[in-house]
Amino acid sequence: MSRILRAAAAQLGPIQRADSRPATLKRLIDLLEHAASKGAQLVVFPELALTTFFPRWLLEPSELDGYYEPAMPNPNVAPLFDRARELGVGFYLGYAEKTPEGLHYNSAITVGPDGKILSKYRKVHLPGSVEPRPGAKVHQLEKRYFLYGDLGFEAFYGPDAWGAPVTGMLICNDRRWPEGWRSYGLQGTELMLIGYNSAAYDPNGGTSEDQALRTFHSMLATQGNAYMNSTWAISTAKAGVEDGFGLIGSSCIVDPNGVVVAQAQTLEDEVIVADCDLDACKQGKEKMFNFANHRRPQHYHRLVDQVGAQLPPKR
Amino acid sequence: MSRILRAAAAQLGPIQRADSRPATLKRLIDLLEHAASKGAQLVVFPELALTTFFPRWLLEPSELDGYYEPAMPNPNVAPLFDRARELGVGFYLGYAEKTPEGLHYNSAITVGPDGKILSKYRKVHLPGSVEPRPGAKVHQLEKRYFLYGDLGFEAFYGPDAWGAPVTGMLICNDRRWPEGWRSYGLQGTELMLIGYNSAAYDPNGGTSEDQALRTFHSMLATQGNAYMNSTWAISTAKAGVEDGFGLIGSSCIVDPNGVVVAQAQTLEDEVIVADCDLDACKQGKEKMFNFANHRRPQHYHRLVDQVGAQLPPKR
Repeated sequence: MSRILRAAAAQLGPIQRADSRPATLKRLIDLLEHAASKGAQLVVFPELALTTFFPRWLLEPSELDGYYEPAMPNPNVAPLFDRARELGVGFYLGYAEKTPEGLHYNSAITVGPDGKILSKYRKVHLPGSVEPRPGAKVHQLEKRYFLYGDLGFEAFYGPDAWGAPVTGMLICNDRRWPEGWRSYGLQGTELMLIGYNSAAYDPNGGTSEDQALRTFHSMLATQGNAYMNSTWAISTAKAGVEDGFGLIGSSCIVDPNGVVVAQAQTLEDEVIVADCDLDACKQGKEKMFNFANHRRPQHYHRLVDQVGAQLPPKR
Repeated sequence: MSRILRAAAAQLGPIQRADSRPATLKRLIDLLEHAASKGAQLVVFPELALTTFFPRWLLEPSELDGYYEPAMPNPNVAPLFDRARELGVGFYLGYAEKTPEGLHYNSAITVGPDGKILSKYRKVHLPGSVEPRPGAKVHQLEKRYFLYGDLGFEAFYGPDAWGAPVTGMLICNDRRWPEGWRSYGLQGTELMLIGYNSAAYDPNGGTSEDQALRTFHSMLATQGNAYMNSTWAISTAKAGVEDGFGLIGSSCIVDPNGVVVAQAQTLEDEVIVADCDLDACKQGKEKMFNFANHRRPQHYHRLVDQVGAQLPPKR
């Protein structure tokens, strides 16, 4: 049986702080319909796809609370769930989660073609800082506004209609961390779904990274980790200038060789589509990256025994 | 104090099975002298740089034994050590090691400008198989001819004359395994030295990988892991058609952004040189890849608790 999944990355252009929730949701639904018209069975939206990237601002609690979803789905997003179910299309959606206990996470869900949530992921690798950098015009306050993800990296089977791919989710900065990819790779992952909001400048205040270099980093990390784990990757940006600060684009679909098979060309709302042959993962998984044959965990102890770098002893 | 190391990759063209040891050593010395004439302080030679890539053949013990070095240095290689010391140039050299106890490893050493061995590494990620594939014209028998490296991934300080870089060594297939890179990254590695012999076809007998794709894989793994560990990488091929079977080239020097700053253009003996600003590692190590701030080892348990892939539970 052929296991070819037609998948889409639904890149969003900027969502301004002043944009209304219904207007933004309509853009997502338009992208979903556009992808469905191209035959896509799965549509990957960005991280925090329902609002502006609010961690760039130091916000008052009164404004902040409005960025979180108290449940998923909820009345604000129900039209997206409804339209996707009508079309028989599944999707990955990044959003700011507020639990009934009042805990906040940077989360993503994958929804099946029947409208049911297949799995939820909470971002493990939160970038940025708790406190704003003094004097900075723009911040990266994810460590202030979210708790570290507590669900780990748990792969799941996509629906039979998609070829039942072993599927994983990552969010933005996670894609730069090989530990997360490998945790999924060690579950046989064939399909990695990723949404991101990545600054087109150094969000930590440096001056050595520009839009071109940041885009290169994003592609390199996605392609390299897809190759080293023999998995497809669908990685979707929120792009363009949001409230005066740039986000990179270059949403992409990457094959298990690390080769880009589709890539967004704009910094606006844009759909890209590719047929993902899930069995193309076999070559890597059975040969070069046959983990059972080739890994040597007895030498990997530092990866779990320490957090930060520890320099070697001085000569 | 500026910490700029002028480093070279000394790519070797093919070494045929019939080539004499002295003729091969002369090629290495010529490359060393060429690199020194360009001001290089460190020269990186390939994996198994003294002989043909003999694991492609199923060999009789009588022939096999001649490929191993019983000590390092030894009279066969003394002229290289002597010339390097005269020039005040250090080097990385890959070779087949036979210990006094008769154990075999695929090894590499880094030698300082004073001719003394700074560190030794034994290849951890041996590719291929113990038994030849029935009917194959060419094999990949590293698991037959070598034991798995038992020294782990231990970084060391290069000499003060190089800026005292925290340095790591990998060999060939190791460069595709993020676990090894991260083990070094967690020691603050600023300079990764790599030699390789990589087939220009699928050495495991598949038909889906050609020279272009294999070269792409090699570059992608090196660039991606250099970026994700904020380290310079100098990665050197033995290239060209050896005894009828092709090896990729594309030896390269990669900066801590993953950007290629020098790349070999031939499949022959060729020297490339770059000035490696070791302090360029700081941006990544202190910000994006500040491990102490951002890693979450409590979620990485699979990396050490299992060897092969374990599929998720069925729905």
